[in-house]
Amino acid sequence: MKAAILGTTGYTGMILVRLLARHREVTEILPGSSSQAGSLLQDVDPGLSRCILSKTGKRGARLLTTEEISAASPDVVFAALPHLASAEVCAPFFGKTPVIDLSADFRLKDPAVFEKTYGEKPKRPDLLEKAVYGLAEWNTEEIKKAGLIANPGCYPTATLLPLLPLVRAGLVTGTIITNALSGVSGAGRNVKAMYLFCERSENTCAYAPGKKHRHQPEIKQALDKVSGSSLDIFFTPHLVPLKQGMEVTSVAQLGRPVTNEEVAAIYKEAYADKPCVEITAQRIPETLHVRGSNRCDIGWHIEGDRIILLSVIDNLVKGASGQAVQNMNIRFGFEETEGLDLHGEI
Amino acid sequence: MKAAILGTTGYTGMILVRLLARHREVTEILPGSSSQAGSLLQDVDPGLSRCILSKTGKRGARLLTTEEISAASPDVVFAALPHLASAEVCAPFFGKTPVIDLSADFRLKDPAVFEKTYGEKPKRPDLLEKAVYGLAEWNTEEIKKAGLIANPGCYPTATLLPLLPLVRAGLVTGTIITNALSGVSGAGRNVKAMYLFCERSENTCAYAPGKKHRHQPEIKQALDKVSGSSLDIFFTPHLVPLKQGMEVTSVAQLGRPVTNEEVAAIYKEAYADKPCVEITAQRIPETLHVRGSNRCDIGWHIEGDRIILLSVIDNLVKGASGQAVQNMNIRFGFEETEGLDLHGEI
Amino acid sequence: MKAAILGTTGYTGMILVRLLARHREVTEILPGSSSQAGSLLQDVDPGLSRCILSKTGKRGARLLTTEEISAASPDVVFAALPHLASAEVCAPFFGKTPVIDLSADFRLKDPAVFEKTYGEKPKRPDLLEKAVYGLAEWNTEEIKKAGLIANPGCYPTATLLPLLPLVRAGLVTGTIITNALSGVSGAGRNVKAMYLFCERSENTCAYAPGKKHRHQPEIKQALDKVSGSSLDIFFTPHLVPLKQGMEVTSVAQLGRPVTNEEVAAIYKEAYADKPCVEITAQRIPETLHVRGSNRCDIGWHIEGDRIILLSVIDNLVKGASGQAVQNMNIRFGFEETEGLDLHGEI
Amino acid sequence: MKAAILGTTGYTGMILVRLLARHREVTEILPGSSSQAGSLLQDVDPGLSRCILSKTGKRGARLLTTEEISAASPDVVFAALPHLASAEVCAPFFGKTPVIDLSADFRLKDPAVFEKTYGEKPKRPDLLEKAVYGLAEWNTEEIKKAGLIANPGCYPTATLLPLLPLVRAGLVTGTIITNALSGVSGAGRNVKAMYLFCERSENTCAYAPGKKHRHQPEIKQALDKVSGSSLDIFFTPHLVPLKQGMEVTSVAQLGRPVTNEEVAAIYKEAYADKPCVEITAQRIPETLHVRGSNRCDIGWHIEGDRIILLSVIDNLVKGASGQAVQNMNIRFGFEETEGLDLHGEI
Repeated sequence: MKAAILGTTGYTGMILVRLLARHREVTEILPGSSSQAGSLLQDVDPGLSRCILSKTGKRGARLLTTEEISAASPDVVFAALPHLASAEVCAPFFGKTPVIDLSADFRLKDPAVFEKTYGEKPKRPDLLEKAVYGLAEWNTEEIKKAGLIANPGCYPTATLLPLLPLVRAGLVTGTIITNALSGVSGAGRNVKAMYLFCERSENTCAYAPGKKHRHQPEIKQALDKVSGSSLDIFFTPHLVPLKQGMEVTSVAQLGRPVTNEEVAAIYKEAYADKPCVEITAQRIPETLHVRGSNRCDIGWHIEGDRIILLSVIDNLVKGASGQAVQNMNIRFGFEETEGLDLHGEI
Repeated sequence: MKAAILGTTGYTGMILVRLLARHREVTEILPGSSSQAGSLLQDVDPGLSRCILSKTGKRGARLLTTEEISAASPDVVFAALPHLASAEVCAPFFGKTPVIDLSADFRLKDPAVFEKTYGEKPKRPDLLEKAVYGLAEWNTEEIKKAGLIANPGCYPTATLLPLLPLVRAGLVTGTIITNALSGVSGAGRNVKAMYLFCERSENTCAYAPGKKHRHQPEIKQALDKVSGSSLDIFFTPHLVPLKQGMEVTSVAQLGRPVTNEEVAAIYKEAYADKPCVEITAQRIPETLHVRGSNRCDIGWHIEGDRIILLSVIDNLVKGASGQAVQNMNIRFGFEETEGLDLHGEI
Repeated sequence: MKAAILGTTGYTGMILVRLLARHREVTEILPGSSSQAGSLLQDVDPGLSRCILSKTGKRGARLLTTEEISAASPDVVFAALPHLASAEVCAPFFGKTPVIDLSADFRLKDPAVFEKTYGEKPKRPDLLEKAVYGLAEWNTEEIKKAGLIANPGCYPTATLLPLLPLVRAGLVTGTIITNALSGVSGAGRNVKAMYLFCERSENTCAYAPGKKHRHQPEIKQALDKVSGSSLDIFFTPHLVPLKQGMEVTSVAQLGRPVTNEEVAAIYKEAYADKPCVEITAQRIPETLHVRGSNRCDIGWHIEGDRIILLSVIDNLVKGASGQAVQNMNIRFGFEETEGLDLHGEI
Repeated sequence: MKAAILGTTGYTGMILVRLLARHREVTEILPGSSSQAGSLLQDVDPGLSRCILSKTGKRGARLLTTEEISAASPDVVFAALPHLASAEVCAPFFGKTPVIDLSADFRLKDPAVFEKTYGEKPKRPDLLEKAVYGLAEWNTEEIKKAGLIANPGCYPTATLLPLLPLVRAGLVTGTIITNALSGVSGAGRNVKAMYLFCERSENTCAYAPGKKHRHQPEIKQALDKVSGSSLDIFFTPHLVPLKQGMEVTSVAQLGRPVTNEEVAAIYKEAYADKPCVEITAQRIPETLHVRGSNRCDIGWHIEGDRIILLSVIDNLVKGASGQAVQNMNIRFGFEETEGLDLHGEI
């Protein structure tokens, strides 16, 4: 099959090329870039030298315009574009080709919440309801039939996977207090002074605390859908000197006493047949163990009437491009982990 | 005056030498080390080449045994030793020379809490009550007269400075949820596989969540003293790939609605005349801004009935050796910031 | 086929498991460890959780003793053991099973040079001549028939690949001046103070300059073999705050003037059909572009009568475990890059 | 005295404020910035909160225009401005106030070499000869009387300090091969994609090899002045994931055999009374040992007819702002190390 990538030169696009290049069902990759169309892919991303070779029998793939991609009739389109730009650039493909959108343009169902969060009205309000939220372990059946998959944000993925089983079991009450540590690549290839090596090395800080981060409404929407009622969540992200990695700690109040065995059973029910979630129970997960992997590792600690949930992902893999490939696999009936690594780094 | 350091070859000892070397009231530094006595200080710590010169008129200071230090009659003793060892090694100086102890041996007042926390009975239970807890901004008057100062832990320092004014004002209720990010130097010069460059670079994880960390009882003791009642605190530390730096985020429930102005006034009252605390209000503090500095920067964000407190320190300076020098300054009537930097890094 | 690893818990062993786990010709991995036999592999290396599953149909592989591995009759043995230990531990397999040895035990042909370099006589001088030096691009035909492959060191691999074609062409005269920058993982999982995060972060230094590093004789032996005469090389390694990566710069005197076109032709002849070498010509290679990859990127700059050669590898992949798998592929007639990535990181 | 800084918001300007703030002879700092004049210094550089206080008795210094600075009649002007801009911005001060220029505008004596190197004619060719090259240990007497000091580049400082004594002694012949490793701050606060945290973390590369780097002619000019003849130097810089730090390795051919004792004597003669140079002899220097310090550490290794020189500095301190303050101290007759640290980090 032919897989197109819109926005190949950002970090999520660069990871997508790598994952698709080793995917056994993908026979051709169409790398798109509006800003650098015509350039050789390996000049823009020298890590890819010799990589495309294995896929196409020839080296030297050039970056394509959206028109060229459209003319090539891809079987699936990955949109690795900035928020607010994505809905427009993808327009030629809606209704024709399955689109997996890594931006936030179709994640929020309520146009008013979208506008409040992103500062503009949604470009395609008509598609908000149709888009399937691509949290792969939770919306599997909908993803199989989706024409438009809204790939979740990195923070929501790492926050929701540990929370949702407990919320569905009715165990969580009150306000959830979440702190999330993110690697710098979470900001994308964003050329600002605050992302320079000299400003982020040996530095850490919180930002957008409480309810100010754009991913907070996305998390809340997913919690509410599963809980049936309205849960409150305080979400404070932190920027730490990692390149790729995300660690989330949520403290939740329990409605009644629970044991480790009970929690283990709940997670087993939710994730026993899910290849990309690993339950570490009382062993505390570390980001290095999932770096480069599409795994989310989940551990916990019960302390009186509260539970502390600990989860890690690679923000660019399970938090973005890896989950996008996982969604493609589910959508097209491939093995769920095809093209994806499940092991982390040493 | 003559300042002795017991345990010069650990990270806190190495920082102490640097701070004391530029201190205008200290005319002689006596660097002690039981394991490497007799070695040249600059061989053990080559960063100190040419450093001692300015102090003593000669280079080539040798590390001294505790006996040699005792014979030299120092005016003040800094103990930068491991927990449980410190109380014993310092024995020759108790009652004779003011001791500033950077270990945990004298921080907890209740011997039962100490034993539960550190796994052994305190070595000198007779001194627990006499020791003054050296949180410099809060126990200034006691420190001025202290014979034994228990220098606070890094986590307690960064957690308590933002919390105590609000607790004293009676604003905080319920359970405080604290997450703290620490640089790797917080573990000291601990030669274990988990602290290798290859294991900590590009890695982050939580550890000892909830109430399992040894600093949790120390924090709780200080909160209870100021509040008069018993407050609960969940304290989850995280290890991030910083060398020096600590960032703490506490979410506290407010007993009644408060405004930013009210909070600002409370902090002004607590810290306006304190040179080592900087209130950044709605600007979020970053660890780089206090790296190498004895400053604690404090900001906050109010969200409904909760307040998020954000604070940063250098774990080895305000969190250890810098506060120890600050305590010496207070104890001996020097300018409080003598020998200390108040600026962070670029 | 069944692949055994002796020394699975070091960094090169950990990388080997990852590479073999995705290798399509390897149906079973036998992970050995003398120090931790009996332990669950995923407890020792949590990044491997869920990884082995794909290979064996079950999770929970346990580390095996050398005896257990021997009894299981592997088809190939990878020895990822320390120098001087390897020759002894591998003894049961010599003559029975092809052994790919990642240590230095069989790299040097001359027992006297070995003894001078490693401080002891070689354990198995009888095998020194029989062992094939596994610089995959240069000894391909010998590797195809080898019973014992001495996998090259990381520094020799990155230094020799750019030098050998020019040396073979007779262009190089005089003394080659080489400087090599290595990531900290080059020291292995070596629990010493000098490899702690706090000692290596924000630090760089040379070590073993000139002819003092153990890899210098290994490089010289390979140069001499190709040149037919005796070339001199000054080799100065540097430790830089990378985890994985190696960058080598060699300045060589040219016997006669050469053009970029001529150099390009020489490299084309040497490497055009070699999938793991990429010639970047005047574009300067960067370690990130080959991180995780089995590629060696080579560029150059001619300045008067000298040429500056610039090469990069991942020290743990093309510099160790990846080249070992490449050697297995060549030895067993598999596709040369099976199981190996050719792309670097983003 | 009043010290003005033109270009306070770049890295060298930010370091200058910190150094001058603790300088006992400086009573007032005038922080200039054309781009951000009017802003509060601590808003632009939050690490400086509470810092200026000690100097002026009040907080809240604002950034000044060049006109405001000129009107305030400073006693010395530090220009921490980009190349080619500096000569023009400093115009109002030439002939009136001693200027210490950290840019390259006045380092090269030959206008033709300047034009070839920087791509434009020098703005003030009339001042090239008058400007004193501020390599503090070598031009002390000229610096004492200078009206315009051209502060050396970081690479030249770290390369020349070990080379010049041997060159002066007539020991060096042939072509010097130099490799230099620089921290990322060497590029200044340059907001380009290649300096992002995600592009430089876990990455290293050479750049501008041989004779292509702008500092090569500066080094050669200084070598030629001392040698009296024309020496050749190949200079290859490398970018490594340090924030601050520079390590230089030079391999030089010796005209005749020398002993370690002879080299030690040559360095003793050159630097015994120089507080900012430390001879480590056979101990190899490390950048961490001089981080934050104005020290240059120098070691060496003799191998046959060649010597390998190993030196380290902090590129922003001895390589820029620290040496600028050292030059001010020499120029105004203060203690040479006033305001400067001689110790490195732990």
